[in-house]
Amino acid sequence: MPPSSSTPDADALFDPVLAHGGVRAVTGDRAWLQAMLDAEAALAGAAADCGVIERGDADAIAAACDVAGFDAAAIGRDATATGNPVVPLVRELTAAVGAPADAHVHRGATSQDVLDSAAMLVARAAVDVIVDDLAAAATAAADLARAHRDVPMAGRTLLQQAVPTTFGCRAAGWMTGLDTAVTRLRTIRATGLPAQLGGAAGTLAALGDAGPDVATAFARRLDLVAPVVPWHTIRTPVAELSGALGTAAGVCAKVARDITLLAQTEIGEVSEGVPGRGGSSTMPHKHNPVAAVAAVAAAAAAPGLVATLLSAMVHEHERAAGAWHAEWRPWTQLLRTTGSAAAWLRDSVGNLEVHTERMRANLDLTGGLPQAERVTAALTDALGRLTAHDLVGAAADRALAEGTDLHTQLAAERDVTDVCPPDELVRLLDPVGATGNAAALVDRALAHHDRRVAATSSSSAAVGHTS
Amino acid sequence: MPPSSSTPDADALFDPVLAHGGVRAVTGDRAWLQAMLDAEAALAGAAADCGVIERGDADAIAAACDVAGFDAAAIGRDATATGNPVVPLVRELTAAVGAPADAHVHRGATSQDVLDSAAMLVARAAVDVIVDDLAAAATAAADLARAHRDVPMAGRTLLQQAVPTTFGCRAAGWMTGLDTAVTRLRTIRATGLPAQLGGAAGTLAALGDAGPDVATAFARRLDLVAPVVPWHTIRTPVAELSGALGTAAGVCAKVARDITLLAQTEIGEVSEGVPGRGGSSTMPHKHNPVAAVAAVAAAAAAPGLVATLLSAMVHEHERAAGAWHAEWRPWTQLLRTTGSAAAWLRDSVGNLEVHTERMRANLDLTGGLPQAERVTAALTDALGRLTAHDLVGAAADRALAEGTDLHTQLAAERDVTDVCPPDELVRLLDPVGATGNAAALVDRALAHHDRRVAATSSSSAAVGHTS
Amino acid sequence: MPPSSSTPDADALFDPVLAHGGVRAVTGDRAWLQAMLDAEAALAGAAADCGVIERGDADAIAAACDVAGFDAAAIGRDATATGNPVVPLVRELTAAVGAPADAHVHRGATSQDVLDSAAMLVARAAVDVIVDDLAAAATAAADLARAHRDVPMAGRTLLQQAVPTTFGCRAAGWMTGLDTAVTRLRTIRATGLPAQLGGAAGTLAALGDAGPDVATAFARRLDLVAPVVPWHTIRTPVAELSGALGTAAGVCAKVARDITLLAQTEIGEVSEGVPGRGGSSTMPHKHNPVAAVAAVAAAAAAPGLVATLLSAMVHEHERAAGAWHAEWRPWTQLLRTTGSAAAWLRDSVGNLEVHTERMRANLDLTGGLPQAERVTAALTDALGRLTAHDLVGAAADRALAEGTDLHTQLAAERDVTDVCPPDELVRLLDPVGATGNAAALVDRALAHHDRRVAATSSSSAAVGHTS
Amino acid sequence: MPPSSSTPDADALFDPVLAHGGVRAVTGDRAWLQAMLDAEAALAGAAADCGVIERGDADAIAAACDVAGFDAAAIGRDATATGNPVVPLVRELTAAVGAPADAHVHRGATSQDVLDSAAMLVARAAVDVIVDDLAAAATAAADLARAHRDVPMAGRTLLQQAVPTTFGCRAAGWMTGLDTAVTRLRTIRATGLPAQLGGAAGTLAALGDAGPDVATAFARRLDLVAPVVPWHTIRTPVAELSGALGTAAGVCAKVARDITLLAQTEIGEVSEGVPGRGGSSTMPHKHNPVAAVAAVAAAAAAPGLVATLLSAMVHEHERAAGAWHAEWRPWTQLLRTTGSAAAWLRDSVGNLEVHTERMRANLDLTGGLPQAERVTAALTDALGRLTAHDLVGAAADRALAEGTDLHTQLAAERDVTDVCPPDELVRLLDPVGATGNAAALVDRALAHHDRRVAATSSSSAAVGHTS
Repeated sequence: MPPSSSTPDADALFDPVLAHGGVRAVTGDRAWLQAMLDAEAALAGAAADCGVIERGDADAIAAACDVAGFDAAAIGRDATATGNPVVPLVRELTAAVGAPADAHVHRGATSQDVLDSAAMLVARAAVDVIVDDLAAAATAAADLARAHRDVPMAGRTLLQQAVPTTFGCRAAGWMTGLDTAVTRLRTIRATGLPAQLGGAAGTLAALGDAGPDVATAFARRLDLVAPVVPWHTIRTPVAELSGALGTAAGVCAKVARDITLLAQTEIGEVSEGVPGRGGSSTMPHKHNPVAAVAAVAAAAAAPGLVATLLSAMVHEHERAAGAWHAEWRPWTQLLRTTGSAAAWLRDSVGNLEVHTERMRANLDLTGGLPQAERVTAALTDALGRLTAHDLVGAAADRALAEGTDLHTQLAAERDVTDVCPPDELVRLLDPVGATGNAAALVDRALAHHDRRVAATSSSSAAVGHTS
Repeated sequence: MPPSSSTPDADALFDPVLAHGGVRAVTGDRAWLQAMLDAEAALAGAAADCGVIERGDADAIAAACDVAGFDAAAIGRDATATGNPVVPLVRELTAAVGAPADAHVHRGATSQDVLDSAAMLVARAAVDVIVDDLAAAATAAADLARAHRDVPMAGRTLLQQAVPTTFGCRAAGWMTGLDTAVTRLRTIRATGLPAQLGGAAGTLAALGDAGPDVATAFARRLDLVAPVVPWHTIRTPVAELSGALGTAAGVCAKVARDITLLAQTEIGEVSEGVPGRGGSSTMPHKHNPVAAVAAVAAAAAAPGLVATLLSAMVHEHERAAGAWHAEWRPWTQLLRTTGSAAAWLRDSVGNLEVHTERMRANLDLTGGLPQAERVTAALTDALGRLTAHDLVGAAADRALAEGTDLHTQLAAERDVTDVCPPDELVRLLDPVGATGNAAALVDRALAHHDRRVAATSSSSAAVGHTS
Repeated sequence: MPPSSSTPDADALFDPVLAHGGVRAVTGDRAWLQAMLDAEAALAGAAADCGVIERGDADAIAAACDVAGFDAAAIGRDATATGNPVVPLVRELTAAVGAPADAHVHRGATSQDVLDSAAMLVARAAVDVIVDDLAAAATAAADLARAHRDVPMAGRTLLQQAVPTTFGCRAAGWMTGLDTAVTRLRTIRATGLPAQLGGAAGTLAALGDAGPDVATAFARRLDLVAPVVPWHTIRTPVAELSGALGTAAGVCAKVARDITLLAQTEIGEVSEGVPGRGGSSTMPHKHNPVAAVAAVAAAAAAPGLVATLLSAMVHEHERAAGAWHAEWRPWTQLLRTTGSAAAWLRDSVGNLEVHTERMRANLDLTGGLPQAERVTAALTDALGRLTAHDLVGAAADRALAEGTDLHTQLAAERDVTDVCPPDELVRLLDPVGATGNAAALVDRALAHHDRRVAATSSSSAAVGHTS
Repeated sequence: MPPSSSTPDADALFDPVLAHGGVRAVTGDRAWLQAMLDAEAALAGAAADCGVIERGDADAIAAACDVAGFDAAAIGRDATATGNPVVPLVRELTAAVGAPADAHVHRGATSQDVLDSAAMLVARAAVDVIVDDLAAAATAAADLARAHRDVPMAGRTLLQQAVPTTFGCRAAGWMTGLDTAVTRLRTIRATGLPAQLGGAAGTLAALGDAGPDVATAFARRLDLVAPVVPWHTIRTPVAELSGALGTAAGVCAKVARDITLLAQTEIGEVSEGVPGRGGSSTMPHKHNPVAAVAAVAAAAAAPGLVATLLSAMVHEHERAAGAWHAEWRPWTQLLRTTGSAAAWLRDSVGNLEVHTERMRANLDLTGGLPQAERVTAALTDALGRLTAHDLVGAAADRALAEGTDLHTQLAAERDVTDVCPPDELVRLLDPVGATGNAAALVDRALAHHDRRVAATSSSSAAVGHTS
């Protein structure tokens, strides 16, 4: 027997994990409904700004545009008659406003004007949350990069140890990716979220000659971009934010993935240091990196949602027969899942414990072999390239076969010791010296990051409305 | 300011359109939670069946497994500590059961056992709803095919009129596609939804030698398939149902798309006859096919969700670090969006009004040109192929250029009238006679459909548990 | 029996339709191979720039970097030993260079450095082609908007006639969408395509202290962006271009979709005027809009490819175990399919024939009903809102029921004729006057377009290397 | 300068890695073209079977249907006039056949009949290759499961060691997943690949009353399923195979992913034993699992392609305006990428070297902690559940803190040694005894596998045409 209830059934069982952090609240029914009401209030205000209706009527409409007076579930149920919730919302709002202002509710607008504008308002609020979490994760990565700038770690390619890098260099890469995602989302937030106002066929006909001015005032009141023309069926704003969210989710997934890999029992180079989380009473050795795992999971939903939103760009004529409706759920889900990935990642990176002794131990696992190329290069001047290559290669093979290390083999090799003092051989085989330009790259990346943060702070101070 | 609330915010604003019909109720928090509790009850029951625990303890556990005693939102919130809701659910259940049976709650199982089994139970309930709607839509299409078996309609290729078909033939195609989707979903429902029981690493270690028997009893109690081995990280059951749901959604989209196209103002061959829906007080000529539009919209979300679920098949080792969690939301969404498409389509096809006079009028729009090939063929014996082809081609060109019809042109052509009596010319140009084997194909398709329905009815009667 | 051959089998059967236009040539084996060789030449040149190797050696390497000397198929076959084609390419190149410069081939680089840099070069060439086609399509749309600024056409929502717009307004919307896609792609082309140079683990270790300078010189030589740090496993450049390509494809699909819909036999408002294409000898009335159909088809492949590339952002550690290889084919396919959509769309829009008389005839199909709201508004002052609404509503219902038009009904209505002179009634019911601000929107959009084109031209003149 | 050439540019640079194995040859231009010609030959033969044309004409047509006589690139180029390659192919074939049989070439068919039927033939050949590789990989996994039935290995959940399993159990899971994919693909191969024959609007009009019989004979000649009605716009056959291929690719990805993880330097439990592959001259410790990496990469392309094919199910009316063309490339790519994944996986699993000593060493890494729960259970009878739990928990905490092992801690605990003899403590802490029902599950899975193989062999022997 399926359960049933008179109140709507939420998705609260999975949301705390999969719609984690601040993004859930700003993308729920109440947020959507308030955003639609904000659009209706701004429409009335803009009409008054342009002399189309009386200011008093606009004020009366605005006064009624408070989500507290509306029942999202009831409006949703009534939406089935026309296919969208704006029609019943306008009916409810008109009733709430009362005469005489009620004649001017929704004046000149079509349902899509209100819903699309609301979608942009909801997205803006969600992007603020997402950017905040991504930026915090970037800052946490910057702290890791700074603190571990010179800590050697096995560089790993195709999941195999290759040559050394530093953990700082890895963290600097994470930080740079997160910063790039932040920058792109901030750009779209500032310039890529347009208001929508076009009326029944996008010609603003019902507003007469004042139409274009009302549209401009409408956008200004919502603090959204005023588009060149209505974009009812030209969905680039939807697609561009979708792409940026998909990219941000992908960066989160990469970082989180790295954390889950570094946290493997056999590697143990990092762990999430949140007391009481990720442990197991029956398996005391487990330290599940819960936040990183959840970030991976949330991010995994993004690509499919981006594809859905891109596929839904094919809006027919002046209003789509399905493609528009097809955006609503994936739009919300993409904001939520990206926000969830960002929130979990902020948690994971921000609480990361770094086990530098394990990094060193893992580097030594293969007995100095990652430094083989470096030794060969150092011996080339004295022995010639081919001889050096063959000598080191043979020593490496013996080390592998005998389970010893490269130092043991090379130190027993007269041709080597003749041209390479013992101290020098030790130095060449020390991974600490084999990290190349890792530190310089960390410094460059941190300088870049600091400039971005500084620029954001000053622009936030000036503009005053970004998160 | 984002709204906030102590009770979870639902998605009730869009659900009635985008999670339409019966599928929403069977995939919500209460349904998921009850399914998990059903799994816990079955586990205890199975353990008792195999002598692992006392029957009385199993009964005590089963008695507590009622969703009414649990708070989904609270369990969801506590899920963040471990990343899944089963851990807090088991804690709550254990408390509810009380001593001494509480020692046997969740015995031998891991969280994924319960959640995966619940996912299959939720899916089964949803598939029942979906199949019911798809089958009803197929029946409605069968009725249309039968009623309009011989009604000529323009066959359209690349959105251009081609040669005639019948509306019955079109409807028979819809019906066949829907039937195929029903058959595949029924097959998976019967043989492709396995229970999950493996314990911490899939070895059933905590149940001792009784493990495999308990797993079998567990599956039997849930009326799910008993798998060969635990499928914690081998996700073919998830993938196969996903593919079938995506296919079903695609069929719904095709049919619904056709309806929106045939309902265009300029074509007007069908309309949705639901009083009070799809009209517009300010645009009295509009008859929006709301149900078909909503079906298109719902179906559009499916391919991306299928891709997400297929991408999430890469589960590491004995339990995935993210890919498992990544399934939960898309799984639910895919069931809902496919169910929504099916429910709306059932509504649309079931209420379809067919305007046969417009079908005929549209066929005549191009002045008999769709029958040009047929006339050519008929004249070939008398005139030779090349002459016939050139003659009819020239007549068609003149008809197009002068805006007359093919009959006017050919009737004025001595070479034609010499060999083709006036009645025969009229007959050749009548689209009614140009529908080929449309009627035979309708009959064949209906016979096939009737056999499928009959087979289902008798198997339902025998088995007694399919919808 | 599968066919076999010693020369590689191409995909030339479908490419002319599905990899249409200029993009195929710049994304094929030869283009990829030359791009890799360009990267090798730039690497040697950059090393010489920074004093790491002799200029003469760099010149010798550069001289050998000509695709004409290499066999793509053979290199491809040898790629299976390591999993990527750079290893055999470097071997071949080293042999071609000969002593002594051969010691410096590929110095300091890892395979991914060369392949990623080549991927950016290939993408740049493809983006140039795509931008060129999109911009030409936008220009063609601008011409249509200008020429048909005041031509009334039925505005259509949910595939139903709604209220009038103009064909110019529709074309202006197309143009604006295409311009937006062009602008985004140009921005990425200028600032979003980075060179890749990091060496085995991204630390530039093998180039010693000169590493960062060599990386900068390398980027400068390839005219690619110098990234802050190597992006071997931070794939934002791949993701951002993917998103932009997906968006561009979506815009193409929308425009092309509109064309296929407007070209329907029953609507007939546009057709593709390419002699000898899209016709049918046996169905003389058919005018298949082949270019628009092919654009729709090509664009349809983009969202799935974008999803694949976003999913593939999860690169482990310093080099991915699969996710990197997973990019190569979708990257090429996404460039090709977007380019194909753009090329076909340029063809379609550039050859579009507009049938304004059919636009007018279609507008009149519903007997003036789309102007019902306008008449109501005009009568409101004299009759009051409610009376006006009821009067016009009843007239509309009678017009629909009797198959007459709104003018006939209203002209027979004393209450109407008393307050509305005959000329005024005709004027109110004329769709020409009901297009609202369509003309003003066209003018605004064209002004915006012209500014974009002018800005591009002057910046192209200054920079000299954009298409 | 983009390279150019008069012969078509292949994708041979990446194909050997990304379109690996036998599938490339059976999905190339020659294979497609021959399949179309096979359809034309079968069509003529079927027409003769039903008395529609002379047997001699049919034979003449069949004789000309050899790919050797046709130029795929030229046909591809000419396809742009109509949008599909069948039109120029038929023209070429007609010319090749010559009078008088040429009048009967392609008789009664539309382009889509030939292309869809060819798509099924191409798919069948590719599925045979894919099934062969998947089945071989399953056999290799079965061999591993049998050989390592009792070899303990750390069970790993969320990439953390959990409790022990056996490598045989893991391999049995792989085998079962591969077998399931094989079974599903074989079922579709046998019952899900239909011929297509409907003529211009799907009514078989041009074949007169013989139409349905010709369609049946046509299917029989191609050894494809005879569908109930033409499926020009009902794309379930495409969707169902797509879903099955996506599922198969996902299983390959899971297995390959496991291999890359087990092959990590720090884990080292498996390696690919192919001499000369995956090594690095400069990094002698590297053993890149090239085949597994390539399998992961190939499989990653599948979900997006499945989504594209599902999205493309929305075919309008009697033939789609774009959605049909949109299938061709993804269909080919999905066959190739799934085939590539299967071929690489067969290689990887078939050459897998298993390092059981590393499995044991890794199990001991955590000092017996994975067996903590087992010890607790064993002490419960003597000490009571709570005391046992607390005692073992404290010992585990000390072991972790001091870096010793659980045995050291427990052996020093009087409360433990009083009730548990030394031998018993060693036994309890030995992972060999903690693998639960792993061996029984392996046996059950192998029995199931053997039955499947036996059933396939006998049915192959009987039917004689499956691979």
